[in-house]
Amino acid sequence: MLTYRRRIQIEWGDCDAAGTVFFPRYFEYGDACTNALFGKAGLFKRTMLKTYNIPGLPIVDVRARFIIPSDFGDEVVYETSITEWGRSSFMVRHQVYRPDGSLSLEIFEKRAWVKRISEDPVKFQSEPIPDEVRKRFTDDSAV
Amino acid sequence: MLTYRRRIQIEWGDCDAAGTVFFPRYFEYGDACTNALFGKAGLFKRTMLKTYNIPGLPIVDVRARFIIPSDFGDEVVYETSITEWGRSSFMVRHQVYRPDGSLSLEIFEKRAWVKRISEDPVKFQSEPIPDEVRKRFTDDSAV
Amino acid sequence: MLTYRRRIQIEWGDCDAAGTVFFPRYFEYGDACTNALFGKAGLFKRTMLKTYNIPGLPIVDVRARFIIPSDFGDEVVYETSITEWGRSSFMVRHQVYRPDGSLSLEIFEKRAWVKRISEDPVKFQSEPIPDEVRKRFTDDSAV
Amino acid sequence: MLTYRRRIQIEWGDCDAAGTVFFPRYFEYGDACTNALFGKAGLFKRTMLKTYNIPGLPIVDVRARFIIPSDFGDEVVYETSITEWGRSSFMVRHQVYRPDGSLSLEIFEKRAWVKRISEDPVKFQSEPIPDEVRKRFTDDSAV
Repeated sequence: MLTYRRRIQIEWGDCDAAGTVFFPRYFEYGDACTNALFGKAGLFKRTMLKTYNIPGLPIVDVRARFIIPSDFGDEVVYETSITEWGRSSFMVRHQVYRPDGSLSLEIFEKRAWVKRISEDPVKFQSEPIPDEVRKRFTDDSAV
Repeated sequence: MLTYRRRIQIEWGDCDAAGTVFFPRYFEYGDACTNALFGKAGLFKRTMLKTYNIPGLPIVDVRARFIIPSDFGDEVVYETSITEWGRSSFMVRHQVYRPDGSLSLEIFEKRAWVKRISEDPVKFQSEPIPDEVRKRFTDDSAV
Repeated sequence: MLTYRRRIQIEWGDCDAAGTVFFPRYFEYGDACTNALFGKAGLFKRTMLKTYNIPGLPIVDVRARFIIPSDFGDEVVYETSITEWGRSSFMVRHQVYRPDGSLSLEIFEKRAWVKRISEDPVKFQSEPIPDEVRKRFTDDSAV
Repeated sequence: MLTYRRRIQIEWGDCDAAGTVFFPRYFEYGDACTNALFGKAGLFKRTMLKTYNIPGLPIVDVRARFIIPSDFGDEVVYETSITEWGRSSFMVRHQVYRPDGSLSLEIFEKRAWVKRISEDPVKFQSEPIPDEVRKRFTDDSAV
């Protein structure tokens, strides 16, 4: 299973007036790691969107558990992988660790493989995920 | 059950390069609506934090379902209420509607009532939610 | 001179760990007001981009003066207008007022009228602003 | 003159619907680099705020010139230094370079050294910058 790791430094502007990370920031970092995981698999997002004529990798469902908060100056590590493949959707898991190795939070993103069905940017239709895409993440020989 | 409603206009900067809302923005708007719901209940956040010596209303678990995407210029309506009360946590639900009344997305935030246990901004301990807080949302006579 | 006004409530997530607005947020609100000013002039952004085949209204220079900070729960008013027209650029001014009428900050955005010169999203070339665009902001009979 | 350099990868969520970086993001990255420059000078922000009883390093004036836009997947380098010291303010300059060495943008932040004058988070008063702070950036023997 292909895994992407990124060290992230919590910035002052990531924190809200309570002094800890404003939680939507964790989803922003997660989204960046999902894109980087695809990049690591050889699927650079902008090229992939053109190749497959898809508008993005839209989230249909997301869940997160927040266990230990972080503060400005803390460094966390995102570990990102795809844990499940469906016909036209897949599940991305981000496990985010504190420097001492404890789990800070987990995010589970269910993303869909969709095609635009018109010029309207909000009209999509689900499509089967191409085998060659899935294989890049699961086939040990391919990665 | 106390409900807060806010009309939100999707901005250009809320959208990512796919042309639809970058999903963490929905959590930012949701967080603002949760704070406004407390405000409607007479609990203005900054005052409440001092009164009860709490650092905020930290999210411990959040889930969202995204049904219909939105685009720059669209207007959506957030409907926010607290659907469940536990001893030291509560569940906020945001239902977000499109102008035609269809459900665009739903967010479920589980938030904790915690006290700081030191000056360290990341150290908390759960506390029972004060009755007077809960009553402001549930007691029809009080609101 | 066409002016657009918007009342903006400062959100918890707009503030950083110092407890006042994280300054890039003011530019986000300003950008939304610039788009709304064009909308008020009858130039809805997404339509305008197609009509004139422009990629956006890119900022080439921006300056801001911050006079009085704001905090969560404060309400400010953006007043937005175009104060200068060049051949292929224009100057947007945002004056942001506190509830007591004092000036909180000012933003001056110099924006360019450009055309894409290839499919590459970062390649532009300046173009004269169409007269019919300018007139919508300056000609009293047209607005 | 102490200089801080950071390589930044442009993320999908940094770009707006025009496909290039939404300009307020550049100020967010700049703010992070200013904090990191202070960190490099031995002044970790959270500690510094306590040591000197200051609420932050508030921006009083900021200007930016945008020369070449960037797109998702591009990598830029921020070079950050303090170019001027006043009695109670200083000027931070960020020069942001593209991989080919061309200048993408420049930011000039004028920041003030202020003390809180009450519990009110929006009330400040300017103070002379302590010599020992300035010296960490300018005294070659100290760095």
